[in-house]
Amino acid sequence: MRIRILTIFPEMFEGFLNTSIIKKARLKNLIDIEVVDFRAYSKDHSHRVDDYPYGGGAGMVLMCQPVLDALKEHSDAGSYIMLTSPTGRVFNQKMAHELMEKDDIVIICGHYEGYDARIYDYVDQQVSIGDYILTGGELPAMVITDTLTRLVEGVITADSIVDESFENGLLEYNQYTRPEEYDGKKVPEVLLSGHHENIRKYRLRESLKLTYLNRPDLLENREMSKEEERMLEDIKLELQEQENG
Amino acid sequence: MRIRILTIFPEMFEGFLNTSIIKKARLKNLIDIEVVDFRAYSKDHSHRVDDYPYGGGAGMVLMCQPVLDALKEHSDAGSYIMLTSPTGRVFNQKMAHELMEKDDIVIICGHYEGYDARIYDYVDQQVSIGDYILTGGELPAMVITDTLTRLVEGVITADSIVDESFENGLLEYNQYTRPEEYDGKKVPEVLLSGHHENIRKYRLRESLKLTYLNRPDLLENREMSKEEERMLEDIKLELQEQENG
Repeated sequence: MRIRILTIFPEMFEGFLNTSIIKKARLKNLIDIEVVDFRAYSKDHSHRVDDYPYGGGAGMVLMCQPVLDALKEHSDAGSYIMLTSPTGRVFNQKMAHELMEKDDIVIICGHYEGYDARIYDYVDQQVSIGDYILTGGELPAMVITDTLTRLVEGVITADSIVDESFENGLLEYNQYTRPEEYDGKKVPEVLLSGHHENIRKYRLRESLKLTYLNRPDLLENREMSKEEERMLEDIKLELQEQENG
Repeated sequence: MRIRILTIFPEMFEGFLNTSIIKKARLKNLIDIEVVDFRAYSKDHSHRVDDYPYGGGAGMVLMCQPVLDALKEHSDAGSYIMLTSPTGRVFNQKMAHELMEKDDIVIICGHYEGYDARIYDYVDQQVSIGDYILTGGELPAMVITDTLTRLVEGVITADSIVDESFENGLLEYNQYTRPEEYDGKKVPEVLLSGHHENIRKYRLRESLKLTYLNRPDLLENREMSKEEERMLEDIKLELQEQENG
């Protein structure tokens, strides 16, 4: 997997590229991440990349020329071109899996008020990472790169992926580690029992309960097993009883 | 506004803290951001912060001791304690405005498989930035910090905020800047007209259209003005006609 990121703040990526999983994946050549400063492509005498919007309004707009010249140089016929934008499709784990089909991704990071809209004609997918306003596309580009890198074979052990939140459509169950008691709070008995089937059931039930309480939307489109259906009924009953005192 | 971030990868924040808007806001003392390495609080002889999960399973779990000792040292009675977690409430611009009521925020960044669940008892709000799996809470902490910093008075000019996507419940209209023609593509005539009222109407209509096409969910809970209602009806008609050829 090759990811190229076009930005005017390449220095923002240094810590990200040289830490933890991303660093290891790069050292093992499992992923090739390149950060390109598109300001270097500006033909303006003072290397400006933005200008005032036609029609007036606050803020500045990224110009076609530096962005598209940098893109031309740092993309190939088969590249999948993404552009970070609050108006884009909201990135999620499902989209991440779809993107894994692409070998070669280019992410353009916006700044200032936005892009000259003519840039969109050269882009395959506008993408947002959530409904909040950020200074630029650098954090979104890191979020996408981090999520994709974790899905590259060899980066994370397969066991670990399946258990994580969203991958099985449920939030992850609560975890506990040593010590058995901390500040008067104990680890649930069943996790200390060594009884694998009971532990599996307990965790599945906890996952369902957390998801039902915090993200019921995730349950709506989920195909449930018979066991999960029974557990969920039981959880609803339990919560109702708690509510009734 | 004071934001303290507890992490085992403080170096990931360097680029973020020293770039663009965040750098300027810090230099002007409009925001106070402090990054704390909670590994330094580990009482383990080799400074470990994680251990195997009770009940088995892949991956490691963050221990109570280093996280909570660091939290004790780097929070006050009035601090609002947040913890980044895929099972948390999904961060958005509305939540950002709510958080602006707090003066003093602490964000705990997770890593590995998750936290010892007993840590949650010391936390006011678990927060997620979207439905995707990241390596750790560092990028979410940056996303939250960036979004909040932009809302601190004096960081961004007020005009600029109102126009942006989400702030008025709509996606932002398309923007254009010089030149008038690029690669055969022209700027819409109305934006060159200098006619303020026509420009305002054109942009509002474009905002509504983009939102209707890309994020219809944003329109569902929105109180519309009469003008917006009329425009939206007109947009739907136009799109229907296009569809019918």
